[in-house]
Amino acid sequence: MSQRRFLVEPGSLSVGAELKLAPEEAMHAAKVLRLKTGDQVWLLDGAGAIAWAEIAALDKRSVTCRVLKVKTLDRPLPRLVLCPGLAKNPAMDLMAVKLTELMADEARTFVSSRSVPKLKDPEAKTGRWRRLSLQALKQCGAAWPPDWSLPVDFTQILGQPPGGALKLMLYEGAGGAPSLAQALGRRDALGEVWVLVGPEGGFAKEEAEAAQAAGWTVCSLPGTILRAETAVLAAAAVIRFG
Amino acid sequence: MSQRRFLVEPGSLSVGAELKLAPEEAMHAAKVLRLKTGDQVWLLDGAGAIAWAEIAALDKRSVTCRVLKVKTLDRPLPRLVLCPGLAKNPAMDLMAVKLTELMADEARTFVSSRSVPKLKDPEAKTGRWRRLSLQALKQCGAAWPPDWSLPVDFTQILGQPPGGALKLMLYEGAGGAPSLAQALGRRDALGEVWVLVGPEGGFAKEEAEAAQAAGWTVCSLPGTILRAETAVLAAAAVIRFG
Repeated sequence: MSQRRFLVEPGSLSVGAELKLAPEEAMHAAKVLRLKTGDQVWLLDGAGAIAWAEIAALDKRSVTCRVLKVKTLDRPLPRLVLCPGLAKNPAMDLMAVKLTELMADEARTFVSSRSVPKLKDPEAKTGRWRRLSLQALKQCGAAWPPDWSLPVDFTQILGQPPGGALKLMLYEGAGGAPSLAQALGRRDALGEVWVLVGPEGGFAKEEAEAAQAAGWTVCSLPGTILRAETAVLAAAAVIRFG
Repeated sequence: MSQRRFLVEPGSLSVGAELKLAPEEAMHAAKVLRLKTGDQVWLLDGAGAIAWAEIAALDKRSVTCRVLKVKTLDRPLPRLVLCPGLAKNPAMDLMAVKLTELMADEARTFVSSRSVPKLKDPEAKTGRWRRLSLQALKQCGAAWPPDWSLPVDFTQILGQPPGGALKLMLYEGAGGAPSLAQALGRRDALGEVWVLVGPEGGFAKEEAEAAQAAGWTVCSLPGTILRAETAVLAAAAVIRFG
């Protein structure tokens, strides 16, 4: 049933509602999956609600679903904000998909001294990552995609976390620093965690010092040098499932 | 310096040794990186040894390195064996690269009732994953690639772990089962962990029962449905870094 998930507008799911699928979703339902009237499907609104629905009407151009049951999900704890340094594709696209599966709440990209890509059109790129994250919902049935913010400068991101958030920076030059697992401490006590992960070339020493001065804890994934995108996904997996 | 890593034959690294790089490696050093005599590089033997070396001689067709220092690394604990159900590309290629970064010791693929791909040439495919894992060493500087075994039948893999290994099966139909983190228990007490991850369609109920009867513990990554390759990488990340 994994392909029988369709995206609908946020807030549109209520029992008995009849919803027309967007044209692309309708085409997928009718032409690729060859669904028929009466077939049952999942509808996701990308805002915490998942519905069980049946196809009420279907022709070549349009598919209408009738909502049978709605489940509203609670966001998992801790609230998880991943901050990856801007990377080249396919790293960013991979993150956009996998961070949905790993239930990250937000993805905030930044530009630091060793960032390579220059984004000509940050809004278009961020739009792409948003779309990929949203599409990934259909694969994994998660209730939310991560929120993507427009890239900011490294110095800006340092001040963004709210008071009370645990602020971690993965930094491979961190001799004697705790591991990510040690820095996380007791998992059941965590309300919100932010993780800064450098671009492919890592952070400059001055950047690590600036982060520490701003209250971030430097830590590491010991024993290996991960690609930037692997570090992002490994950190998210450890925080969600470790 | 991340690109200045080159693969050499296992066991060939000793201080003072002069080693000719293989043709492909030599071309990369000379033509892509434009290295010169006297430049310093890392050499990896893929068998636990990493050396710091200098280029002793270099022309268009051949590069000779003189070994200056050798470090022999201990394998991290626990010994980590990931058993992914055979998946379609690009999932397998992604695993081949990322399992090197995540320091998996072995990758053992299997065919179960819901496996989709039929491997026409298992030896060629397994050879491809071995090569990708080995190439990934150059990116991450790990000391070993994971060992890849030829795919076996699901029932065979159940009996492969040695006595004393912790045997875990990720199974999304596992109502009331412990999470992976709970099933792992105290991390510092782990000697060897095997993790079975199903193909894209998951395991059949009978397969989960057969695994349990063979002493495997069924567990889950709660809260979401991960793609098969994401589950493999998340499990490896949690065991290595959680």
